[in-house]
Amino acid sequence: MPFSPQELLYEGKAKRIYRTADPRVYLCQYKDDATAFNAQKRGSIAGKGEVNCTVSSHVFAYLAQQGIPNHFLAQTGPTEMQVRALHILPLEVVVRNRTAGSLCKRLGLEQGLPIQPPLVEFYYKNDALGDPLVTPDHIRLLQLATPEQVERLGSLALAINNHLQAFWRSCRLELVDFKLEFGLDEKGEILLADEISPDTCRLWDRGGSEPRVLDKDLFRFDLGDPVAGYQEVLQRVLQAVGSQFLL
Amino acid sequence: MPFSPQELLYEGKAKRIYRTADPRVYLCQYKDDATAFNAQKRGSIAGKGEVNCTVSSHVFAYLAQQGIPNHFLAQTGPTEMQVRALHILPLEVVVRNRTAGSLCKRLGLEQGLPIQPPLVEFYYKNDALGDPLVTPDHIRLLQLATPEQVERLGSLALAINNHLQAFWRSCRLELVDFKLEFGLDEKGEILLADEISPDTCRLWDRGGSEPRVLDKDLFRFDLGDPVAGYQEVLQRVLQAVGSQFLL
Repeated sequence: MPFSPQELLYEGKAKRIYRTADPRVYLCQYKDDATAFNAQKRGSIAGKGEVNCTVSSHVFAYLAQQGIPNHFLAQTGPTEMQVRALHILPLEVVVRNRTAGSLCKRLGLEQGLPIQPPLVEFYYKNDALGDPLVTPDHIRLLQLATPEQVERLGSLALAINNHLQAFWRSCRLELVDFKLEFGLDEKGEILLADEISPDTCRLWDRGGSEPRVLDKDLFRFDLGDPVAGYQEVLQRVLQAVGSQFLL
Repeated sequence: MPFSPQELLYEGKAKRIYRTADPRVYLCQYKDDATAFNAQKRGSIAGKGEVNCTVSSHVFAYLAQQGIPNHFLAQTGPTEMQVRALHILPLEVVVRNRTAGSLCKRLGLEQGLPIQPPLVEFYYKNDALGDPLVTPDHIRLLQLATPEQVERLGSLALAINNHLQAFWRSCRLELVDFKLEFGLDEKGEILLADEISPDTCRLWDRGGSEPRVLDKDLFRFDLGDPVAGYQEVLQRVLQAVGSQFLL
């Protein structure tokens, strides 16, 4: 009974999570609501829920094939997926291949500079505090994760970066940076969770003279039509997935 | 000719640094000016320059005895000391033994909780950016120091913490947290620099029922008379130094 959500467990800015009849399975419903800058900017992007659900489904399936454990079970509707019920760690793990966004603002860096080796950052998921940057020592102090878990998150994030760079390259997009969330299963294993979409990845088409933004920065900074941008990402993913390259 | 400063090299919020006739030596002049919250709050604490210069001189001498290389050469006047000419690294290294100040604000922690093991944090010295927190990976990206230097700064900071805790304990004060700066000599060796004073250390007298603040928080948060607080710290240092315990 995949389409019979039960108790609403959690409503976030972009998704609702429901319990299902099976305690090991949650239903994840993607919304069109868009927020930015810790919800100071609010709006809606028509079709975003469907794009992000479908893109995430394909990315999670691809990552599972590459040996990256994740929470995805099945896409059960245009904006709905079944995922494994996990205990989500209150951390956002960000990987950066080029300077952009908050990194440039915090550190006074120009946009678009290559970062080699890629940078891994941890942020404490806490809206009231504005999701502050934390070091592994802060994570230990706040007891958000053990030092061994932090180590594992860092190495998983870099491995995922390699796979996602290949995935997005097959869509003729460069992966500038992205945000990951992880959860623990009943055995304490760390699995990739949340979503992987134009909401959580900075994706640049670098085919032209200037990089063309195809991600949530369209909405954040009013850089162009986000509806068209998200649809273009979906079409590119469907095309890549349909070709021999990926699945 | 210790009292003949030459070219003013740098004027900071609390000190002036002059070149001297000897290119290996700078003259450091301590001011009464006080600023807080990235200079959003400004004022003056009568006698602060003399307290901080004298306290720093005793602390640096003590640390040198304990084998911690530092820039201090001699106190040459009530508000003046000679220091070794170093290339200062644009980093603030903060060590925390209890939660206080910006840590509590950033991470939503209660004040005064013990931190064990002590926390070491790095901040990028950049007024325009508000001295942002940085990780070792940010430091590498910004080329502020090499990974080996960052490693050395961390272990030096923890060793200094042990010595400073003993020093301040001999003054019946608890060292809550403190900020260090470091510089490189002509051989590339890392030496402790800047000052160690009630401007850069949080010092609590925990003899009573409530901790009594004896540091710059008196000025920052209007917790009491900073002039009296700074003088009390100086008297306690002179008493401890005059006893057998320290020097």
